[in-house]
Amino acid sequence: MTNIQGIAASSGIAIAKAYQLVTPDLSYEKKAIESPEQEIERLESALAISKQELEKIKAHTQKEIGDEHAEIFSAHLLVLGDPELINPIKDKITNENTMAEVALEETANMFISMFEGMDNEYMRERAADIKDVTKRVMAHLLGVSFPNPALIDEEVVVIANDLTPSDTAQLNRQFVKGFATDIGGRTSHSAIMARSLEIPAIVGTKEVTKTISQGDLVIVDGIDGNVVVNPSEDEVATYRKKQEEFAKQKEIWAELKDEPTFTSEGEQVELVANIGTPDDVAGVINNGGEGVGLYRTEFLYMGKNELPTEEEQYEAYKSVLEQMEDKPVVVRTLDIGGDKELPYLDLPEELNPFLGFRAIRFCLENEHVFRPQLRALLRASVYGNLKIMFPMIATVEEFRQAKAILLDEKENLTNEGINVSDSIEVGIMVEIPSTAVIAKQFAKEVDFFSIGTNDLIQYTMAADRMNEQVSYLYQPYHPAILNLVNNVIEAAHSEGKWAGMCGEMAGDSIAIPILLGLGLDEFSMSATSILPARTQIKGLSKKELASYKDKLLSMATADEVVAFIKEKTE
Amino acid sequence: MTNIQGIAASSGIAIAKAYQLVTPDLSYEKKAIESPEQEIERLESALAISKQELEKIKAHTQKEIGDEHAEIFSAHLLVLGDPELINPIKDKITNENTMAEVALEETANMFISMFEGMDNEYMRERAADIKDVTKRVMAHLLGVSFPNPALIDEEVVVIANDLTPSDTAQLNRQFVKGFATDIGGRTSHSAIMARSLEIPAIVGTKEVTKTISQGDLVIVDGIDGNVVVNPSEDEVATYRKKQEEFAKQKEIWAELKDEPTFTSEGEQVELVANIGTPDDVAGVINNGGEGVGLYRTEFLYMGKNELPTEEEQYEAYKSVLEQMEDKPVVVRTLDIGGDKELPYLDLPEELNPFLGFRAIRFCLENEHVFRPQLRALLRASVYGNLKIMFPMIATVEEFRQAKAILLDEKENLTNEGINVSDSIEVGIMVEIPSTAVIAKQFAKEVDFFSIGTNDLIQYTMAADRMNEQVSYLYQPYHPAILNLVNNVIEAAHSEGKWAGMCGEMAGDSIAIPILLGLGLDEFSMSATSILPARTQIKGLSKKELASYKDKLLSMATADEVVAFIKEKTE
Repeated sequence: MTNIQGIAASSGIAIAKAYQLVTPDLSYEKKAIESPEQEIERLESALAISKQELEKIKAHTQKEIGDEHAEIFSAHLLVLGDPELINPIKDKITNENTMAEVALEETANMFISMFEGMDNEYMRERAADIKDVTKRVMAHLLGVSFPNPALIDEEVVVIANDLTPSDTAQLNRQFVKGFATDIGGRTSHSAIMARSLEIPAIVGTKEVTKTISQGDLVIVDGIDGNVVVNPSEDEVATYRKKQEEFAKQKEIWAELKDEPTFTSEGEQVELVANIGTPDDVAGVINNGGEGVGLYRTEFLYMGKNELPTEEEQYEAYKSVLEQMEDKPVVVRTLDIGGDKELPYLDLPEELNPFLGFRAIRFCLENEHVFRPQLRALLRASVYGNLKIMFPMIATVEEFRQAKAILLDEKENLTNEGINVSDSIEVGIMVEIPSTAVIAKQFAKEVDFFSIGTNDLIQYTMAADRMNEQVSYLYQPYHPAILNLVNNVIEAAHSEGKWAGMCGEMAGDSIAIPILLGLGLDEFSMSATSILPARTQIKGLSKKELASYKDKLLSMATADEVVAFIKEKTE
Repeated sequence: MTNIQGIAASSGIAIAKAYQLVTPDLSYEKKAIESPEQEIERLESALAISKQELEKIKAHTQKEIGDEHAEIFSAHLLVLGDPELINPIKDKITNENTMAEVALEETANMFISMFEGMDNEYMRERAADIKDVTKRVMAHLLGVSFPNPALIDEEVVVIANDLTPSDTAQLNRQFVKGFATDIGGRTSHSAIMARSLEIPAIVGTKEVTKTISQGDLVIVDGIDGNVVVNPSEDEVATYRKKQEEFAKQKEIWAELKDEPTFTSEGEQVELVANIGTPDDVAGVINNGGEGVGLYRTEFLYMGKNELPTEEEQYEAYKSVLEQMEDKPVVVRTLDIGGDKELPYLDLPEELNPFLGFRAIRFCLENEHVFRPQLRALLRASVYGNLKIMFPMIATVEEFRQAKAILLDEKENLTNEGINVSDSIEVGIMVEIPSTAVIAKQFAKEVDFFSIGTNDLIQYTMAADRMNEQVSYLYQPYHPAILNLVNNVIEAAHSEGKWAGMCGEMAGDSIAIPILLGLGLDEFSMSATSILPARTQIKGLSKKELASYKDKLLSMATADEVVAFIKEKTE
């Protein structure tokens, strides 16, 4: 039995067999061959198995997720059958009397570097396809198994270095009971995804892919951030009990599902949820969310070959608004770029994508992308309580420009005879330090603020939150962050506006008392965090917490802040 | 005659022939060949010319800059003579009956992708060598000339897309009268370098490499940010006159060389210079610098194959301190990482290097690098007025840890019987928003602040200053920047400490009145900006400017700030 410590990213307990979602070791030793014919035969057979697998995965993906997501596998199948790639490999085997592995690798590398060198997004994608397909064929030549997440058909815990959005799209959600990854933190994609799927997850273990083998029995303890490998029977029994207790705890939380959120002295705050798709709304309602504080619209744009139409977007926004009835729904306009790419938009390659051409910066320069989204939102606005929020606002001019385009589209729709709600609030994400610093100036022009702490922290600390070597600087409790958050809340209140928070910090049990004391109005978090947060807030006095404000804001370090808050709320 | 507008990066007027420092177009059309023998002959001849050139460049570099800088060319010569690379090219010509160009490109690409794919810094560098050498040989195969900046032997204006530090190291400074580049801004390497060389430069023209041909007569007007291509005789005469006027203006400025800097009501401020090497001190003294506000120590570590020794560093620091006599010298400890790499340190590749493992973050984890630098500084401290400054401080803990290591080395030296000054001030760069926000907390522990606006602006605005697509967000006059700068100055003064600024903003004629009004104590800039700044400050009333403070800090946009300050100081 081995115990591996990591970061608890999504709570609950999972007990299942390990499924290693890891590219196998594809290195090989160069050897003299018996005959070119035999090597060509080996190649043919590896190609045939790869083809079978890809067809199965393609069919599965079409059925489970949709035609568009399956297109990538059609592209891979085309590569596998392309004589321009396959014939040179065979020729090389014959002419150079070389192993199939060598011929495959060298030929593929030649094409990859040729395509990658071209200044053409389409050809660069072909290079990526060849890379993917070559790995699969190489694995079969070497007789090692290649992971096929789409084909999982029994209950498993997925073990991976990291889970990218495209890995997650392929996972068969029915059978995946939990994840454990080597890298990542509470705000990485895999962590957010696990909370949205409501499955236990541990990230940042540094070693699960090394320590755990395919088929090992694994316990993922998302409560204490623990992975247990090959537990004893006693251990399994203990965790089964913990699993039951967690289920009971969830039942207790569930009692607060339909209640508003009050502090101990009866002051009300709003607990809302972050969502990515209309399907997530069910989770918000089941978890007692009082609204949607952040609807990330990127998912509408991802995993496709072209922009979503205005109509597709309209249907999605309408669906969320209708499902949420008259509860507030804050929709963030497209936040693309940075670590999120869209192949069909041909975004520039950047040295520092987090400091680059993304979100509102991109939208203001690409009105053909921005306007259809705004039109879709405006048209959907009559079906509920819509609030629109612009991401990555760094200057007042950017907000003015974005709002002018919105008003322009509103006028266009009115002229076309289409109804648009007249009570849409228009606000901004506060995730860039400049905006937090001059929140007072912004408060005169916006209807609300929503503080995006994931980005605000990384920019304020100048530390990439995805970079393990500086992750110690991702400090939500750093007094500078608290001062900026306080500045935003005070600015909002001084102009009679409201301030919310939609970063991961809003659902964090240490941050909640601090934010309550600073006067935050709206807390937007993973749906599964709402009931525990509501329970916690019931026991907190806002008045008492507010009295610590000056002291907290003048502290020198995050450690002091945490020690103080723990002492006061224990 | 063509006029190209750009960003004036270094003032003065240069008139000379264009030298295109641009990789020529190396594309070619595939054709059937006459005979493999003829292709091999062409290849041999291209190899021979390339070899001759590289030997000349190597000899020149050894003579002008030193053996270490010439090593890269030895590596290139080795590649040129390597039968493991050359024979496969010849074989390919013979076996595949192909052009020398095709055989060269395909063989080189195979090696490059093979070496690049290896997880080994040494092999990746070999890939870079092969790339460089292949380009040169390809140019000679195609009969196009390949730029050899080290071999320039007449007066020229260098035209380039951008100038990297390694380009600049190769330039023959005696003959380069000015630069014009396609990309870059006032804070790019090429701009800073031009000011330090005191030669006129225009950056960010977007088109000089396209519009200007080798040998065109070019005027670089670094005063108005203008490049004139193939001017008429009248035009040349006009600019000769402007050149003379500029020389006269410089003489007038020079009259203030040995005077302190006073505002119109006689309040004194300190004007000091940014330097990179001991050789730059002459320029500081010639330009009337009252000290060194930023000694960037990175140059000691660059262009070498190993860390500089403690002794080498000691000599450099001692030289600067002695030359500056008792004037203050602020030395910044190593700021490596980000866009500055050291091949021998094997720094990690990062997705967002500006938000990564750099400067103090790197030094605190690599005491074998940090301690020798601190020891060298402490040993040199007895030769002048040394102040030590740590870069990229984001938390109070980092400062405490860095200072503890410094005090530990001081104790070690004292125990070894070595004299160390007892009056060394220890301060920090304020270039990360978190530190600017809680400057008050820092002010209790540091001896001084120096605001590094180049980085502070890019983090506060979340915009990479090197990325053309978001360069409009690099806004020194954004009210958020002014509020942070004000916060730092107020914090310093409340604890009886001083606050300086060593970013490019400190020497900017629009920023100077604002900074004076906010109470900045020390302005550190390019040496050549000192006399114009001193002249400007003589005409400014600090009291009047201070009265605009609240108004400026509550403005909404940078444009408002600029318009207001221009109106008030005209």
